[in-house]
Formats: sequence, C-alpha cells, structure tokens
Amino acid sequence: MNLKEGLKLKNPAEVIEKIVEFIKNEVEKRKKGGVVFGLSGGIDSSLGAFLCAQAVKKEKVLALFLPEKDSHPQSEKDAGLVAETLGIKLLKINLTSILRKIGIYKLFPSSFLIPRKIQEAYVLNKLKRFEEKDKNVFLENLKGGGGEEEIKKALAYYRIKHRVRMVVWYYYAELKNYLVVGNCNKTEKMIGYFVRYGDDAADIEPLSSLYKTQVRELSSFLGVPREIIKKAPAPDLIPGITDEISLGMKLEILDQVLYGLEKGMNEEEIKRQTDTTEKKIQYVKELIKYSFHMRKLPPSPDLHDLL
Amino acid sequence: MNLKEGLKLKNPAEVIEKIVEFIKNEVEKRKKGGVVFGLSGGIDSSLGAFLCAQAVKKEKVLALFLPEKDSHPQSEKDAGLVAETLGIKLLKINLTSILRKIGIYKLFPSSFLIPRKIQEAYVLNKLKRFEEKDKNVFLENLKGGGGEEEIKKALAYYRIKHRVRMVVWYYYAELKNYLVVGNCNKTEKMIGYFVRYGDDAADIEPLSSLYKTQVRELSSFLGVPREIIKKAPAPDLIPGITDEISLGMKLEILDQVLYGLEKGMNEEEIKRQTDTTEKKIQYVKELIKYSFHMRKLPPSPDLHDLL
Repeated sequence: MNLKEGLKLKNPAEVIEKIVEFIKNEVEKRKKGGVVFGLSGGIDSSLGAFLCAQAVKKEKVLALFLPEKDSHPQSEKDAGLVAETLGIKLLKINLTSILRKIGIYKLFPSSFLIPRKIQEAYVLNKLKRFEEKDKNVFLENLKGGGGEEEIKKALAYYRIKHRVRMVVWYYYAELKNYLVVGNCNKTEKMIGYFVRYGDDAADIEPLSSLYKTQVRELSSFLGVPREIIKKAPAPDLIPGITDEISLGMKLEILDQVLYGLEKGMNEEEIKRQTDTTEKKIQYVKELIKYSFHMRKLPPSPDLHDLL
Repeated sequence: MNLKEGLKLKNPAEVIEKIVEFIKNEVEKRKKGGVVFGLSGGIDSSLGAFLCAQAVKKEKVLALFLPEKDSHPQSEKDAGLVAETLGIKLLKINLTSILRKIGIYKLFPSSFLIPRKIQEAYVLNKLKRFEEKDKNVFLENLKGGGGEEEIKKALAYYRIKHRVRMVVWYYYAELKNYLVVGNCNKTEKMIGYFVRYGDDAADIEPLSSLYKTQVRELSSFLGVPREIIKKAPAPDLIPGITDEISLGMKLEILDQVLYGLEKGMNEEEIKRQTDTTEKKIQYVKELIKYSFHMRKLPPSPDLHDLL
C-alpha cells in the first residue's frame, strides 16, 4: 500500500454527500432549528462551514468569529470571506474583555504596543529554549507532569481561549435551539491536538473521520478560498505558533505515519515511504498513547462488587 | 429484591476506600500535583471534598467556590464550613462580572433590589405556568425542540454558569498541574441532569457510580456537616429551583425507580414497591432515553467504506 495514495479520497463528492447527510440527520434527530459553530478563518472550520451550508438552509447557519487580543488580523478577513462566499450569518464577539476579567493577560508581560512580528519572534525563541534538550513541549504536556512554571502558565493561557469559545458557542446554541458543530479533524483527534472541553466539545463532529490532508483535499474540491487552504494551519492562540511548529513535524508526513499505523503497516515500511526517522515514528506513537484519555469520557471507580 | 434495601450500601467503609484509592491512582497516573474541584456547598461536592482530602495531602487540595448573582447566600457558608472542617484551601471567585460581560443578565428583567424570596416565588410561578399542560420542562428540554422563547432564554441563562465554572476549574488545574475532579452522581448521569461540558466536564468522576441516596449515606458516614446533608439539593443556578422541583419527583423515589430499571425489575413490581404511578415510571424511562447522547462523545459520520 502506498500511504500518499491511500490518504487520497477516491470519491470526494460521495464523501461530501455522506457528511452533509449526516449533519442534516443529526439536526432533525435532535429537533434543532439550525447549526452554530466557531469560524476561526482556518481551513477546518471553513470546510465545516461549507458543509453546514449544504446541509441546512443558509438562514439557519450561524458562524461565530471569536477573536481576542492575540488573534491574527488575517483571521477576521478569512472568516469574513467564508461567510460572505456562503451567504451565512457571521457574528463577531471579541473575547478579550472576558479573558481579561478571568485574569489571563496578567500571566505574561504586557504585549501592548509591541509589533506582532516581535511578539512572534519572542514566543518562538522561548519555545526553542524549552525544546533545546531535544524535548517536544507538546508531547511533554500530554505526558503530564506540568514541568516548568512558564509552561504551566502558557497552557492555562491558551487552553482557556478554546474553552471560552465553546461557552459562547453553546450560549448561542441554547438561545436559538441550534446544534453545535465541532470542527476537529482525525489527525488532531488521534494525537490529542485539541483542548479537552474546548474545541472538542460539540454536539456533532462532521470532520473527525478525515485526516488533515483529506480536509485539504475536500476544501479544494468544495471551493474553500485558496488563501485559506494555502496558509499554514495554526491554532491562532499564541502569536507565532503554527501546528507544524508545535508538533515539530510536517502535517503531511504526520498524516502518512498515522495512516500507516492505523492500517497496521510495518514500521520499517512507514519509515521508508515517509522518509522519516525511527525517532519520529516513536514520537507519533507516543502522541497517540498519551492522548488516550482525551478521547474517553472521564473514568469512575469500579464499585460493581460493592454495590 | 427490595429496592430500598438494594440501594443501601453494604459496606460504606469499603466503598470509601475504593474511591479514595481510585483518586490517588489517577492523580499519580496522570502525574498531577494535586486535585481541584468546584465546591458549591451542596452535598455532592462536599462528599467529593471529603474523599479528595483522604486521597491527597490537604495542601494539595484546591476547592473553588464560584458564586454569581443568583447564588444562595447559604452556599458560601456551607462551602466554607466544608473547607474549614477539612483544612483545605478554598478560593472564592465571583463569576458575576464575567457572566455580565457575556450578557446573560440582560436576558431577564433585572432582579436588583428584589428580595430573594420574591425572586424565588416569581420563578416557581413561571415554571408552574409552563408545566400547566402536564408537561415537565426538564424532559421537554431533553427531548429537544427548544419550545417557547422564554424557556430557551432560561436554558442559555443557567447552563452557561456551569460551563464558566468548568472553565475556571481548568484554568487553575493548568496553572497548578492539578487533576480536575467532577462531582456528578449516578442519578444525575442516568437521567441527564447535568450540563453537557459543564459539571460533567472533568478528568475523573469519583461519584458517578453512586446514586444520590448513596451519596447521602456516604456523606453521613464520613461526617459531612449535617446541615449540608439535610438541605434540599438544588443546582443553585436560578433562585427557587431545587432538584425535586425541576424533576417533579422525590429523589428517593427516583433512585428506587432507576435502580429497579437498572436491575431489570418488572415494572409492576417497581410501581408496587415505590408506590408510584405507571406514568412516573414512563417518565423516568424517557429521561434515560432522551439523555442518551449526553453520555456519549459527539458522533461523526461513518465514512469507513469511502476512505
């Protein structure tokens, strides 16, 4: 089996049809009047928006753009472009004042008046320092243990943003009796590249059977604006951090490794086809292993022999 | 089988030991430095606090009391009493200003300066009007459909409070590398009496194998203050609403019916033992049925034959 070929969608039109049908059915089954989701300007939520706009009348699609102090200025333009292209309603709510009330911006020195480019360089430099000992910060966090004070603060600082967004999604969902559509993809799900009870919290997840590579392919097929497809995927929560920087790996290679592991392919063969190292493959396996609990409901004690 | 007898714990000390062991193991397994949870002043989180204080050194237990405008004044005293009894740290953060920023208090006429007793009577009167047609609002909401504008606003109004609390739990959990302990019980879980991605969002759920009746029994056994055990359980999110009012049923009877259904007991026999009506039993079965999706991770389309 060829990994690159295997990831390619045989019939994108049919995949779209199935996903659209799925969204439609769930909205009906749950007796909802429409759908609501976060539209960040990134490729995943843009594809989600395109699929929702096919599943539900466009008057019943509500996209929420929820930026805060650190959001990239381009994000708003991209979210606006998607909403305009589809003719769906886009509501913008700036979360900065809510997050400030909780106190997150006091965790780090004020970046007020500091140009974005400098902020980005500062963050990347910090990350590099932490990773100097050949440690990937993302994996270390998954493994637990907390680590240095600065890392804990960084986790608290960015994860809350995803959770507050989710709070706002559900607030509107309840006011309008809409279904919350999550836009995590399969790559993110498999390696725990999401915030628990943040971007994974939704009523349905139409994209979570698709690898990132496949999200890209479907997006091209459906006509998601090219500039959105082309830009480097990023959580857009801390200036300068992209998916590839924080994962330390090209997303295309990551997908191929994940797909190979999913299909039970021999690791030597995965290494050969992806032209990657043994170490990288072990790294991906660790990501899967240590994110296990993120794909489970919270555990309870087993008391069955006492009750 | 006798339902009342069946629910009684044969060996409370052993149950406690197992739960404490469970908490301890999870903290270790996830390499956490301690535990954090919401302490509302109600019986469930109070019992949770007692169990956590046995599982982890008390310096490593952080209880968060997160009231807002509508919280009952007694709640703070009760949360304080538990923290003091156990010698654990209690942090109080008032969420009113955060919730106000999101705009929830504008959903209903201002209650500023209106005595709590009058607010309670107002809410109960409203609820009665909605339930006049022999409809239980809680069940109708589970079934979906949204209903009247006022009900949708009420859902948005109270559910967000649980979600914002969860956001704050995790904020502190991340800052301190602590494990988030949820305190939903089995009764709530079985009938969907919780807020999705709110009070059900946690890293572990030590109480979710125990019916409410059993939570009471363990609480007495462990020495949770009597005033907390005796007060009417309430979500404390909307003035006047208690669990029994919103469920339209005595919690003790509800537990017996749930337990009977769990054990596959003949419905005639459940009716006889609990001295309740056929209709009430059907009602409980509907609660279980329509809350099904609340106990599942969000569904995705099945694309396995296309990928």
